[in-house]
Amino acid sequence: MASEYKTRTGDDFDRDQFESLLRRKVFMWPSFEPYGATKGLFDYGPPLENLEAEVMNIWRDHFIRHERMMALKCSMLTPYRVLETSGHVAKFADYMCKDPLTGDILRADHLIKDVIESRLKSDREARGEKVSAVEEDPKLKKKKSKVTKTAVKLDDAVRKEYEHLLATLDDCTGDDMGALIKKHDIRSPISGNEVEPPVSVNLMFQTQIGATGKEPAFLRPETAQGQFLSFQKLLEYSDGQLPMASASIGYSFRNELSPRNGLLRVREFLMAEVEHFVDPESGKKHPKFASVRHVKLPLLDRKTQTEGGSTPTITTIGEAVDSKLVDNETLGYFLVRIMTFMQRIGMDMNKLRFRQHMANEMAHYAADCWDCELLNSHGWIECVGCADRSAYDLMVHEKATGTFMKVREDLKEPYEVEEWQANLDKKKSGPKLRKDQSKVEAALSELSQEMKEKLSITMADKGKVELPVSEMEGGKVELDKDIVTFVKEKRKVTQREYTPNVIEPSFGVGRILYSLMEHVYWTRKGDEARSVMSFKPTVAPIKVLVVPLQKDTRFATLLSELEGRLDDAQLSFKVDQSGVSIGRRYARNDELGIPFGITVDYESLEGKGFTLRDRDSTKQVRASLDEILEAVEKMCKGKETWEGVSGRLPVFEGKVEEEGKEE
Amino acid sequence: MASEYKTRTGDDFDRDQFESLLRRKVFMWPSFEPYGATKGLFDYGPPLENLEAEVMNIWRDHFIRHERMMALKCSMLTPYRVLETSGHVAKFADYMCKDPLTGDILRADHLIKDVIESRLKSDREARGEKVSAVEEDPKLKKKKSKVTKTAVKLDDAVRKEYEHLLATLDDCTGDDMGALIKKHDIRSPISGNEVEPPVSVNLMFQTQIGATGKEPAFLRPETAQGQFLSFQKLLEYSDGQLPMASASIGYSFRNELSPRNGLLRVREFLMAEVEHFVDPESGKKHPKFASVRHVKLPLLDRKTQTEGGSTPTITTIGEAVDSKLVDNETLGYFLVRIMTFMQRIGMDMNKLRFRQHMANEMAHYAADCWDCELLNSHGWIECVGCADRSAYDLMVHEKATGTFMKVREDLKEPYEVEEWQANLDKKKSGPKLRKDQSKVEAALSELSQEMKEKLSITMADKGKVELPVSEMEGGKVELDKDIVTFVKEKRKVTQREYTPNVIEPSFGVGRILYSLMEHVYWTRKGDEARSVMSFKPTVAPIKVLVVPLQKDTRFATLLSELEGRLDDAQLSFKVDQSGVSIGRRYARNDELGIPFGITVDYESLEGKGFTLRDRDSTKQVRASLDEILEAVEKMCKGKETWEGVSGRLPVFEGKVEEEGKEE
Repeated sequence: MASEYKTRTGDDFDRDQFESLLRRKVFMWPSFEPYGATKGLFDYGPPLENLEAEVMNIWRDHFIRHERMMALKCSMLTPYRVLETSGHVAKFADYMCKDPLTGDILRADHLIKDVIESRLKSDREARGEKVSAVEEDPKLKKKKSKVTKTAVKLDDAVRKEYEHLLATLDDCTGDDMGALIKKHDIRSPISGNEVEPPVSVNLMFQTQIGATGKEPAFLRPETAQGQFLSFQKLLEYSDGQLPMASASIGYSFRNELSPRNGLLRVREFLMAEVEHFVDPESGKKHPKFASVRHVKLPLLDRKTQTEGGSTPTITTIGEAVDSKLVDNETLGYFLVRIMTFMQRIGMDMNKLRFRQHMANEMAHYAADCWDCELLNSHGWIECVGCADRSAYDLMVHEKATGTFMKVREDLKEPYEVEEWQANLDKKKSGPKLRKDQSKVEAALSELSQEMKEKLSITMADKGKVELPVSEMEGGKVELDKDIVTFVKEKRKVTQREYTPNVIEPSFGVGRILYSLMEHVYWTRKGDEARSVMSFKPTVAPIKVLVVPLQKDTRFATLLSELEGRLDDAQLSFKVDQSGVSIGRRYARNDELGIPFGITVDYESLEGKGFTLRDRDSTKQVRASLDEILEAVEKMCKGKETWEGVSGRLPVFEGKVEEEGKEE
Repeated sequence: MASEYKTRTGDDFDRDQFESLLRRKVFMWPSFEPYGATKGLFDYGPPLENLEAEVMNIWRDHFIRHERMMALKCSMLTPYRVLETSGHVAKFADYMCKDPLTGDILRADHLIKDVIESRLKSDREARGEKVSAVEEDPKLKKKKSKVTKTAVKLDDAVRKEYEHLLATLDDCTGDDMGALIKKHDIRSPISGNEVEPPVSVNLMFQTQIGATGKEPAFLRPETAQGQFLSFQKLLEYSDGQLPMASASIGYSFRNELSPRNGLLRVREFLMAEVEHFVDPESGKKHPKFASVRHVKLPLLDRKTQTEGGSTPTITTIGEAVDSKLVDNETLGYFLVRIMTFMQRIGMDMNKLRFRQHMANEMAHYAADCWDCELLNSHGWIECVGCADRSAYDLMVHEKATGTFMKVREDLKEPYEVEEWQANLDKKKSGPKLRKDQSKVEAALSELSQEMKEKLSITMADKGKVELPVSEMEGGKVELDKDIVTFVKEKRKVTQREYTPNVIEPSFGVGRILYSLMEHVYWTRKGDEARSVMSFKPTVAPIKVLVVPLQKDTRFATLLSELEGRLDDAQLSFKVDQSGVSIGRRYARNDELGIPFGITVDYESLEGKGFTLRDRDSTKQVRASLDEILEAVEKMCKGKETWEGVSGRLPVFEGKVEEEGKEE
């Protein structure tokens, strides 16, 4: 399939060829294939598993070690109540429509979008406009839609209505979408059938802990909740000091109704989430911000998007924070660190941008959000979300459990305040209020100063007051002056208590790995069958390819010495002793992204060293084993480049690459 | 609680003090504590999370890289049918008894064992025998059993019956256990109530994939099944050559009915499993076995255990394999690699043994099994299982799915065989057999040579035969000579097809980490309040503690230079600037297991370098920053020891440790 997305060398990206490479070289495949595969679940084979391990080691180094974050591992199985409090039970849901005849489940918003977009496309075709290749919907193609595809022209009014509909779809409730489906006669694009009205379906996987049936639980939809519930431990570990950050690398689960686009929307996925806790009053300053002020980022703000633009502005993070485009230093610092992480693992910086969320896009807990988006053949894909979750989560958990989840800070200058106080005489109130005692206490403590003053006047006047207590029967209680008194008292304030705000950079690892694989993929000029995966040596799944010139028992001793040395240097390697030409062997392993090749030839037998080949340039040098191993080790640690190595070691002019063409 | 288990310095191990350290230093805690914690689920705080990451990096290096295994990541969510085929739906279950009055769920075997053991203990007390401290059951203590604890003497016959019962408990069915509970009036030790008869409860967490209700699934109970279902991909990646091994680091889940003993029996846990596929005919030889023949292992065989012994025999793996004590070279090679892995991460080798499984202990799929057991305060705990799973899994999945899961090997010397062949004339059979055609074909292909010969005689005699086809109605079909013929034919055999056998080392990471923490824990002589976690520098969660002598702004520049250099060297560090004495600060961080301390003092300000302190010996050297960083880097990579460093750098005689006592 042709597309407008280009490879790093500027050629058209051929997704079929790319996906064929991923299959052939066992990077990944749908899980449980012998049982018919399960949608939205993928297995990683050796190249991708090793790539993930390398990338996550860099992530640990870049964030946990360098930023001195507190690494945390929390449970995936999560009790019902935790996710009820966090809002996920009520709000982490999609609307779905059922096709009553086939039993198919369709996501309501996807359904509407797909059908309306296809009508608009058909309209453009009918009016003779060019339709770009990326608009072809592969899903519809494969499922062989029964809906006929004759181009149909729309009325101008209808076209405008459709365009407005798409722009506002994210704001629709389930009922809104039900109405749209009726009004526009939207049917299943697979079967052509009418669908049932949208029903809200929670996206969490539910299960039971234990055998009693009393402990309903979910698989967590994000790693964040466990981190929030560990807040007090983390604060203790940090000696009570903010800012502090926890970081968690772990799996989350979303029971997607219609998983699509391979690794981009899956049901089980690795996340790396940072929860950075800050004092909301100290302005979210960041101590290291000065060191990154000058760094330039591509920022696509809300305003540009509202105006229909999609070109990011390149600006320094210093300017962006000064102008309040990016809300604060901490958020800004993280955007920079996210970008340098992407650089470090070898992402194409021309295919990266930061996009500010529109107001209607944000999760139920978020106050502001910037996504790091990576361009791949599926479009611009959110790979890192960087949200300001405010104090939402800590506050709801504190309220639900009664566990103190605030920071207490000693004031440098204690001060006095005069405040209205509601004093309950528990000896007298106990017998009267009985089990409602604690509800009344809570209601009293939540009264505002104004309300307390008001009640003191009523009390002085009538000798009794009526207190609203929503949790009690009738919603209120009458209290007389024997039981409660309202007095104005002086109090010395020595501490400040506050709920921290949380800034959360959240990485979708599968999406990052998939984008990286697309970014490093290219084909050799003049020979499109020769694909190369140009992983940086630091992340490459295998570091060295060992190729004896041909099958010859005389190479055995030298090969085994070489293998021993590579093993001592802790370098992963693969030996290709197959009978085909050396060029073919290199070509075959370029697809695995092995950055360096060591050839053992007849001159090696004479003690004249080995040749070292660079995957990307196919250039070679010849040197002693010690020199070669030193160079490879340095390059795999990111401490030297091929340019450096080929500058200092003698270049070798072989002709092996000419034999490299596939039959 | 006193116990017979000793620390590495030979002192009594105080589990309460140890657990208090784990809590205080936030190594771990029960998950979701603000919601009342959930049994069998634990969160890892920064020290334990980092320890796990270091240990797993070594595991990857020791197994995946060094042994060139194929790393694999498979899905945790697993369709019902996969685990039905593997036998887990039917057999991965425990028997439980319900206390009808309290709703408590008790594992039947644990219940019987606990009650009978407590009666035997009471009998020993009544007879005046000494009862060792490890027999105290902490669970009963804490739950405040209602069962009175007066020592009761038993009849000799009853005592013998009880002892026999305990020895044979593992062989009991659910009905057997039900009968034992009735016969011996076994009641809940918590409530004293009678319990309901044992019911089999599956230990897998069940859920649903998608919203249709048509895709029941489990969370996998082991990582192995995904690896088996990837067999063809792995074989392709290995160019069709055996032996080959896959390795998977991932989470599994078991819905334990009564989780106990902290990290030793949990509901969600990290495993590292290797599936080593071998040709069953080539005798499970291992190419590298010669290199490990001489290595000595502590082996506790089946025979010794049957005779009541528990002392392992120290023997070389060469002798053990030669004498068939260990079944084959491959199994033997893995036992050695497991032991060297444990050594590498710092396990106490005096607390390690390999124990052969008794026949009644093995999982439903296993043919032979050796456990690597580690001694900790809970006893000898299985931490690595090393099972021979034979060809069981590949065969059942092949049968259930029709996917070819064998190896095809070209024979060097093809040969001819003469065999009876059953030929179905499909043109004629089709109209008659219709939908049963394929069942008849399958039944014919499964006929033995003898059966085919017999049927050929019947056919010649009567012109028709009766073929048993279990899947068809009536269980058989009549076929006449027009439809099927039996002939003896010569056939050239050029390939051999076989199902590989699988040897599976399976690591329980949580148990290994917990045992490691107990093994490295000790208290300083003469000051038992000063606990130390002596993690090897290679696995220590944090590598360096930085301590300025006291609070003094003059240290700021030097501190920030030091921090920058540590960061460049990618060494994790912690700065302790609190006001307490330097000795107190060291003592406090010895509990986190930080191996090295760098002190910044007034001589440092004068350019006279820094002191470097070794956690275990509390000895110090003084040297330049370059020398210190080089030494620390080498020690953290396992390339130098403190002995080496203190031999070549000038020793520093400080008196700081004297101040180290806690108040």
